[in-house]
Parts: sequence; structure tokens; C-alpha cells
Amino acid sequence: MAAEKNIPYKIYLEENEMPTTWYNVRADMKNKPAPLLNPGTHEPMTAQELSGVFCDELVKQELDNDTRYYPIPEEIRNFYKMYRPSPLVRAYCLEKALDTPAKIYYKFEGNNTSGSHKLNSAIAQAYYARQQDLKGVTTETGAGQWGTALSMACSYFGLDCKVFMVKVSYEQKPFRREVMRTYGASVVPSPSDTTNVGRKILEQFPGTTGSLGCAISEAVEVAVSNPGYRYVLGSVLNQVLLHQSVIGVESKIAMDKYGITPDIIIGCAGGGSNLGGLIAPFMGEKLRGEKDYRIIAVEPASCPSFTRGKYAYDFCDTGMVCPLAKMYTLGSGFIPAPNHAGGLRYHGMSSILSQLYDDGYMEARSVEQTSVFAAAEQFARVEGILPAPESSHAIRVAIDEALKCKETGEEKTILFGLTGTGYFDLVAYEKYHDGLMTDYIPTDEELQKGFDGLPRM
Amino acid sequence: MAAEKNIPYKIYLEENEMPTTWYNVRADMKNKPAPLLNPGTHEPMTAQELSGVFCDELVKQELDNDTRYYPIPEEIRNFYKMYRPSPLVRAYCLEKALDTPAKIYYKFEGNNTSGSHKLNSAIAQAYYARQQDLKGVTTETGAGQWGTALSMACSYFGLDCKVFMVKVSYEQKPFRREVMRTYGASVVPSPSDTTNVGRKILEQFPGTTGSLGCAISEAVEVAVSNPGYRYVLGSVLNQVLLHQSVIGVESKIAMDKYGITPDIIIGCAGGGSNLGGLIAPFMGEKLRGEKDYRIIAVEPASCPSFTRGKYAYDFCDTGMVCPLAKMYTLGSGFIPAPNHAGGLRYHGMSSILSQLYDDGYMEARSVEQTSVFAAAEQFARVEGILPAPESSHAIRVAIDEALKCKETGEEKTILFGLTGTGYFDLVAYEKYHDGLMTDYIPTDEELQKGFDGLPRM
Repeated sequence: MAAEKNIPYKIYLEENEMPTTWYNVRADMKNKPAPLLNPGTHEPMTAQELSGVFCDELVKQELDNDTRYYPIPEEIRNFYKMYRPSPLVRAYCLEKALDTPAKIYYKFEGNNTSGSHKLNSAIAQAYYARQQDLKGVTTETGAGQWGTALSMACSYFGLDCKVFMVKVSYEQKPFRREVMRTYGASVVPSPSDTTNVGRKILEQFPGTTGSLGCAISEAVEVAVSNPGYRYVLGSVLNQVLLHQSVIGVESKIAMDKYGITPDIIIGCAGGGSNLGGLIAPFMGEKLRGEKDYRIIAVEPASCPSFTRGKYAYDFCDTGMVCPLAKMYTLGSGFIPAPNHAGGLRYHGMSSILSQLYDDGYMEARSVEQTSVFAAAEQFARVEGILPAPESSHAIRVAIDEALKCKETGEEKTILFGLTGTGYFDLVAYEKYHDGLMTDYIPTDEELQKGFDGLPRM
Repeated sequence: MAAEKNIPYKIYLEENEMPTTWYNVRADMKNKPAPLLNPGTHEPMTAQELSGVFCDELVKQELDNDTRYYPIPEEIRNFYKMYRPSPLVRAYCLEKALDTPAKIYYKFEGNNTSGSHKLNSAIAQAYYARQQDLKGVTTETGAGQWGTALSMACSYFGLDCKVFMVKVSYEQKPFRREVMRTYGASVVPSPSDTTNVGRKILEQFPGTTGSLGCAISEAVEVAVSNPGYRYVLGSVLNQVLLHQSVIGVESKIAMDKYGITPDIIIGCAGGGSNLGGLIAPFMGEKLRGEKDYRIIAVEPASCPSFTRGKYAYDFCDTGMVCPLAKMYTLGSGFIPAPNHAGGLRYHGMSSILSQLYDDGYMEARSVEQTSVFAAAEQFARVEGILPAPESSHAIRVAIDEALKCKETGEEKTILFGLTGTGYFDLVAYEKYHDGLMTDYIPTDEELQKGFDGLPRM
């Protein structure tokens, strides 16, 4: 268990080593991600069209496939200092427990009140909203991770924050709602009677417990119909991956400092914000032909966008009000069976990652949730941290790869993203402990139903 | 908001700067803390008597008033590396929000899965149990913070861990219970039918929801009647304060490194484990006449051991099975009105701190919980961290002192202990947000009832 080669258990960058730029991986992609399309005309969305929904600077970032480095504004870097650098941890105890020659590192993004990496982009989006002198922003949230991050960011910059929270979560998962209220956000159960779309849905389906698609529609309606408001989103978009590149850039600085080169990089993938951020600078080297890395996206077997989805234009939301994006998708009408990793239950995938996957720069693997919780528990017991179910997908595959090294005797270096903590996911842990957790794998017929709903282009 | 004098937002010690010894403040006390007494004979407890309940090495630490420095065993230091050093944070954002010339620092102990400083002593106690080749340990837990810490420590050293959890918490606060189960602990709702004392209580009071006093009695019974088991406790004891000195020693190393000297040191005080640990090396300098510091213990107005208690020998538990300790106490029969800072609802106080307070080396202040939650929310919004209600008692007084500096223009340096996070306390936050939280101050008559139950010596 003694540290080898002076590599500490946890590497924290000094303040003067912290990243000063985000890295835009699109600049190094030969095949750029496909543009967002207007759902009516099927023409690429213009900056003007997007600026009704998003802040001007974020629209610029969304459309910019060329600028390689974006300076991180000083105020965002100051906020980052409150919870960054996040530690790059050498998993000495896990390695020992697995008796593997592999060297395992994880970048831990859970040491902040939002409990995940989501804060990295929330603070950026709030900053640009403040720069544009907006009054506030709107968003939707399911279990509340993104809503929490956004409420913290808005509180910091004095912005109004309206969160539409899927009603069933609002009622059954009150804790993240209270965190949001602590930060001054107004949290509305969706569907609500505060929007046209909400009232319409309540009329059609009295007693409905809501859906993410409906919450998105309500948030967008409020944003576009209230002067001084814009809508913000926590994943999938190019701008979000740009901000999240801070995860990968920090990791790379820390690894370079100690002369560590990962052979395999592993991240869980829902909309792609964490994975896209973690791999960004490594993928850049790979795209430029400077280095090679195996990069593995891990998704739940119950929502297998990469491994069983189609690469096609699709709606980003089930309400079909947002632009069309080309992505690996199960169809916006696909309703994944219950899986406790709420953050991975998205039907589609970031356009950037979809293009990279289609071009063969990444692998993907799907895993079942009981095996994910087994990995989570094993990890918690030796490394101390209680991981989020989402993050535990990456742990599962990291352990699998480390065990392969044990068989072959290879001393591979593995880096994985530990996106967050599971403090608000203990109902799922309870089910796992009580043997009540089951696995869900959609049939081909179920998937076909989702594909049938893809827009005709 | 720019950092002054190159003092970073967060000071993390390097691995080679980490403490290698615990500091035993008793070595520098002229008036030593009064010894534990046998409840039957009122004679000082001998090592032999104590060794039936506690591990041998811990008994030695408990009784040792002379050894100044204890080397921290390497295996404990390795475990500490998983979540230590804890950051010493300069509260630049809070200072700005308060518009105070005061410089505020806090030592944040919440960045681990147990969510508090409790892990510092849990791992030490588990280590010595393992060294003695014990099979396992028993303990009680209320809301579950200590039980969580102990289950993590036992999992690490492969010890069996039996936690008696007050039944009402077991049922109403299932989340920490699930964290304990994740770490392999057996968690039993107390009173249970697994012990004599539990069965007796269940017979007398069918349907009782339990109490900490009863849970202690059950845990002690199991420890003393099962070969290879000992009982462990998370606060109050001298040994616990010794282990918790790592908080203060780390803080002092970090402050010395940057030439920072605190004028005021503030900590919340329940049984005294956090406060005693935080102030230890500073108190040492004060006792040796080398430096002077104002040291303030903060307690809830609903459970005011220091500010309204008596300095007397008392039972440590309501079941009256444990040794007598001399301490500031409200009487072991005092039942504090509901206060959401469960960790501060203890009727007594560490003997070490009680002696230091009686000798005039510390001040104490009591605060009401609504003002504590107001401070918690203010802190969360600017510093990002959602604090535990216990920790927020220290925040309240730190803010009050910083505001005094604003009035007087004094540039005092304030250090306070932020013992943990409030992720499992959101029911209390909800009450605060909904305006349903009230304050409780015991009447003199209520206190007198507690004093009437003090043992006649």
C-alpha cells in the first residue's frame, strides 16, 4: 500500500497549475459534429434562432467548431477555486483488493454540494447569463442533480433560477429540492399550472406525475416568453462539453506532472457531459495522431444509446420543441425501464461523442445495474467514497479491465471518471442490499418502437 | 475576491507535510481532567476494569495524562490519506458577503463518506481493535454519523461491526442505515430482542422508539458478553480527543506555513470531539504560555452544558452502566428538546474541555437553532458547501465575530471548524425554509430536574 514512485494517493494541483482555458475538441475533429437543425425547416439552426433560447456567448460556443482553446473567465476560475481542483486519486486500495498489476486512477468530481461534475458547466452558463444582464434562467431537472448545480451557480451570480422538477421526483425525492431551495431557486413540480403546456398536459392527464420531456417544454416556454430569461441545459450540448473539458485538462496536467500516461480512459455516458469532458484533451492528442488511448464509454444495458442505438437526427426532448440533433439515439419516444442511474437514462447522446464513436475513436460497453452496484459497494469499502450509481458504471468497467490485467499480467494504467457521490441514491442501495434490484434489457421490439418514432428527414 | 498575500482559497498539505503524531493536550494541562470513576465504588477506574470494555491500547491512551505526542501508526496514516488532508479554506466569499475586515478560515472535515470528522477516531479505534486480534466492535448511533464512520473503518480492517441504532432513527432516517450496510455493518434497531437489556425494555415499554441511553446499554452488553468484542464511542472520551487532534495539528501546520495566526478559534461542542481536536495544539501553546488565543465553544441553547450546566461527576449514559465522568453536565436524565443538530444533544461534555473551561482557558456561547440555520444558508450560498446543523453553530458565531470586526474595523483572523455536511439533514432545512422551525430554551425548572438526578458523591 505504500505509494510508488512518489505518486501521492491524491494529486491536487496548486492554484498556479490550474487550467486557464477550456479545450474545444471540435477544433481537432476532421469530421465535425453534425449541426443542430430547425425542427420545422430541417435547416441548420442559426445563431439568431438559437439566441432566443440560449445566451449569446453560449450560442457562439455552441456553433464554434474551430477555436481550440477558450480562456476561462476569471470569475468562473474564482468559483472553480471553491471546489476545484478536484483530486486525481490513485486507487491503491482498490488495486490491492483486486490484486491487479494495473494502476488505477480516478478523477473525483463529487466534492461539492451539487455532488457531481454538473457544477462545472452550471457556473459557466450562469456567468454568461449574468454578463448579458439577464434576470434569470430556467431549466428542468429529474432527480435534481443538475438543478442543484444550477441553483448554486445562480445564487453566486445573483440570478433568478426557475427549476421545473418532474413531479414524481419533487414529491418522492424532497432532499435535492431542499438543497435547491437553500440556494434560493424556485422549484416547481412539473407539470404545473404556471405554463400553457403544463396546463394543457394537466387537463389531458389529470394526476400525471410528469416527465422530463414535459419539464423541458415548460422550462423552454418560460424562458422564451419572459424577457430577460434564457433556458439552460446540463448535458448533450457542445457548449456543455466545452465547459466540462476542465475535468480532462486538470487530469492531464496532474498526470503529466507525475509522468503518468493512461492506457485506458473510462467514463459513464448519459448525455455525454462527463465523458466528453474527461476525455477531451486525450482525445485531442489521439485525433492529432500524437498519442493513442483506448477510450471506453459505459452505459446502462437498459438505455444503450451507443451499443444498440441508431446514428440519426432525432428530437432532443420528448416534447419535440427543441432543435434536432444528430446522435446515437434510441428515439425520443423510447422510455427506458427504471434504472437507478437517473443521469444515464437519456435516449440520445452528445453529437460530438456520437461523431467520435462513429469514426471509431471510442468504444462503448453496456452493463447491467446489479453488477454496477456490486462494483459500487466493492469500491466504497476500499476507497471510502460512496459513489453515485452513474459513476459506478465506470467503476464496473474499470474493475473489469483491471481484472483482465490480472489475468494477462499487464501493468496497464487505467483512468476513470468518478462523477459524483451517491448520498441521494440510498433508496437504490437499499434495494440492492435487500436483493430487490433487477436488471432490464430492452428487447429488439421495444427498441424498434423507439426507432419508428425517429423524424423522417 | 483575489487571493491576498498568496494565500490560496484552499490549503492542502502535501503528503510529506502531514502530521505524524497526535497531540495529547493533557500533557500540558496543570490541572489534569478528573479521572473516570467506577459507578459502584466511586474509585478511579483502573486499566484492568476498563480493558473489559475498551481495547488495551485505547485504555492506555484514555488514562495517559503525560505523553505529549503519540506517533500515528502507519496504517492509520495510510487510511487518513484517503480523505485527508482536509482543506483549510480561506472564506474569501463569505468575507466579501459580510463586508468585514476579518479574515475567516475554516477547516472542512466533511469531504468523506461519513460526512464528518468522526472518521478520524473511528479508524484509530478500529486499528487498535485489529491489532489486538479482536473479532469486532459494538457501538450505538443516533442519526447515524458515528455509526457510518465506524462501519467504514471496520470494513477497512475486516472487523465485524454491530451498530445499535435508535429505533426511531432506524425507521425514519433509513439513508445513513443504508450507508452502514454498504460497508457491511449489521445495524440493529434499538431496543432489540438480541440483548437482555433490550428485551427488558421492550417488555416494560412495548412500542418504545428507543433512546441513545438504551442503545449504549445494548452495545456495551454485547461487547462485554461476547469474547473478542469491545465497545467503542465516538466522542467525550480522552482517547477520542487525542485522535481528533489531527484536525488541529493539520490546521496549525497549514497556518504556520503561510504565517497565519488565528485570533479567535471557534468550534461547535456536543461531546467535545471536534472542538477538542481543533483547538488541541493551539490550546497547548496557550497552556504553555507561548501564545494567546480566544477559544469559543458553541452549543445549542436547547442543550447548554457549558453555559448553564454544573461541573460535577455524572453518568455518561442515561442507562447509568458506564463509568462516572466529571464534566459540565445537565444531568444524565436531562432530555433536550428536539434540536436538529443531533450531534450536539449530549447532556455532558468531554472531561478535558470541562476542566479547561473551568480553568478559564475557553469561552462558551449558546445559540438558537433558527439563527443557526440562517447562518448555514448564508454560508452555503457564498461558500458552496451545505453545512451540517452541528457545524453551523460554529458558522453562526464566526459570522457574529466577523460582523463585530466590521463595526470596530479590526482585522481579526478567525478560524472555525466546519465539521461536516448536511446532506442527511435536509428535513431540518425543509422545516427552516417552510418557517416551521422553532427555538427551545429550557427553563430553570427543567434544568433543575436534570441536576436533581446527579449522583450523590
